[in-house]
Amino acid sequence: MIGIKNIASYVPAAGIDNYAQGAKFDKDETFILGKIGSAFLPRMAADQETSDLCVEAANALFAASPKLKRESIDCLIVVTQNGDEEGLPHTAAIVQDKLGLPTHVAAFDISLGCSGYVYGLYAIKGFMEAAGLKNGLLITADPYSKIVDPEDRNTTMLFGDAATATWMGEDAVWQLGKSKFGTDGSGAPHLKVSDGVFFMNGRQVFNFALLKVPAHLHELLDESNLQARDIDAFCIHQGSAAIVDAVARRFEEGEPEKFVKDMLETGNTVSSSIPLLLQNHVFDSKWTRVAISGFGVGLSWGSAILYRG
Amino acid sequence: MIGIKNIASYVPAAGIDNYAQGAKFDKDETFILGKIGSAFLPRMAADQETSDLCVEAANALFAASPKLKRESIDCLIVVTQNGDEEGLPHTAAIVQDKLGLPTHVAAFDISLGCSGYVYGLYAIKGFMEAAGLKNGLLITADPYSKIVDPEDRNTTMLFGDAATATWMGEDAVWQLGKSKFGTDGSGAPHLKVSDGVFFMNGRQVFNFALLKVPAHLHELLDESNLQARDIDAFCIHQGSAAIVDAVARRFEEGEPEKFVKDMLETGNTVSSSIPLLLQNHVFDSKWTRVAISGFGVGLSWGSAILYRG
Repeated sequence: MIGIKNIASYVPAAGIDNYAQGAKFDKDETFILGKIGSAFLPRMAADQETSDLCVEAANALFAASPKLKRESIDCLIVVTQNGDEEGLPHTAAIVQDKLGLPTHVAAFDISLGCSGYVYGLYAIKGFMEAAGLKNGLLITADPYSKIVDPEDRNTTMLFGDAATATWMGEDAVWQLGKSKFGTDGSGAPHLKVSDGVFFMNGRQVFNFALLKVPAHLHELLDESNLQARDIDAFCIHQGSAAIVDAVARRFEEGEPEKFVKDMLETGNTVSSSIPLLLQNHVFDSKWTRVAISGFGVGLSWGSAILYRG
Repeated sequence: MIGIKNIASYVPAAGIDNYAQGAKFDKDETFILGKIGSAFLPRMAADQETSDLCVEAANALFAASPKLKRESIDCLIVVTQNGDEEGLPHTAAIVQDKLGLPTHVAAFDISLGCSGYVYGLYAIKGFMEAAGLKNGLLITADPYSKIVDPEDRNTTMLFGDAATATWMGEDAVWQLGKSKFGTDGSGAPHLKVSDGVFFMNGRQVFNFALLKVPAHLHELLDESNLQARDIDAFCIHQGSAAIVDAVARRFEEGEPEKFVKDMLETGNTVSSSIPLLLQNHVFDSKWTRVAISGFGVGLSWGSAILYRG
């Protein structure tokens, strides 16, 4: 059974001081820390492409996983909506070449935003099992710096560039349990790109998350015959401090402190936010069962239970 | 086990007379029929978007499949590299809304070109099995009319717009057998979009197909313990008449006439070419085992065995 063997990431060292940026919009430290949640927003360099972020994350994964050999990789999925060039070819093909992976790799991109990691986990596990593959890389890299208008106060204080790489294979530490997904395209206009610039209706997205995510997590637990107390931690998409706090409070009977919050130095990294939490808070923990939930562009959402195998 | 229950398609009635277009480039009927293979190239209307092609194909599938109910759909994958808007949100979310599908649908796009249907079959089967889903739609829609320069003689005579919809579920007529995939991103420059315009190095792509596809099919047969005579038909991507003919001839020990060729009224429809062959030549046949192979943008290729369950 294919599960999660390891996770690594790449967060650019350079970036934006979000206090300084906040001051430009008359926002004080209380707002930046309490509502946005991020003091620093990493930014890819001018000479970096999305595929370069993928390569950095994958190389970090190789460095952290001595048993993982390049020549053993037979599957590569890149989750992005801001890939290289103009989307043709797919970024995964470019990453295959830049990483020096063998040409027998099955590679494609999945187009999803902040829900992308949850979908991506089941897509790569399922694809690998259906096609009989053994070692997969699930990469997330969605650098919103490409599309965010630095003058748009609704978005420029939120997003950070990052990439993550997840090694999927047999005999994994973490296994995928029950999952649950959803899509509401009638909300597509709330998060979209027009003429190369990202637009977000923050209030609508906040309301969507608050209405959808706690209920979705409860339904997932019910269908899994689990109680909130059976879950050691909730790793939900780090949209903003306000969203994580509001979802945690709305999720009744749970303890809000079980909702991991960690975006101070990264910002909202889109589909990379959940794997960053898993890498930095879950993998070396004593926890045995965590819930994940991603939500955003589409509108799209997905939640799942992960457990130690 | 999830398999292929039905396939339907949408081919726009309007389009381009390829003889007239050929004349513009001093190409006669022998060239248009013998090398290109398409007398007519369907074109979407100015007021149609990629999602509209998807909706037409899905509605054709609903019409052809009385047992398939909209409310029973729980998975939707759109294979495209020319989706709606600017790729954010994903086209699948827009299609979910336009089709009036329930919001518990798991929906995402896969970014792949002419190899996309083969990958898409295993991706949707695997995702559905991993996530416990029951009725999926695999939609292909990659209207190259959006990106082809009508003055580029290397591409404008080749591509046609179309969309297909495949119903995936239990108790299917056709099951997915062994598959084999590959990617070589060093060939990415041979097929790419720059500044919104598609470029193809035809000679390189032809050589790639001729070198790769027959060998790949032989390897797949070997790994499946099958001989060429065990395969009733080969449904390979309809890149051009010249490519299909050359691959069929190069594939030794096979009978070239087993390679289905049908692009006269459609052109090269990218990821829709293989499902169009399956719909029009395989589903109502007495054949019990066919091989499929897609190849193109990436470079990317994938081959698989389909068999009656």
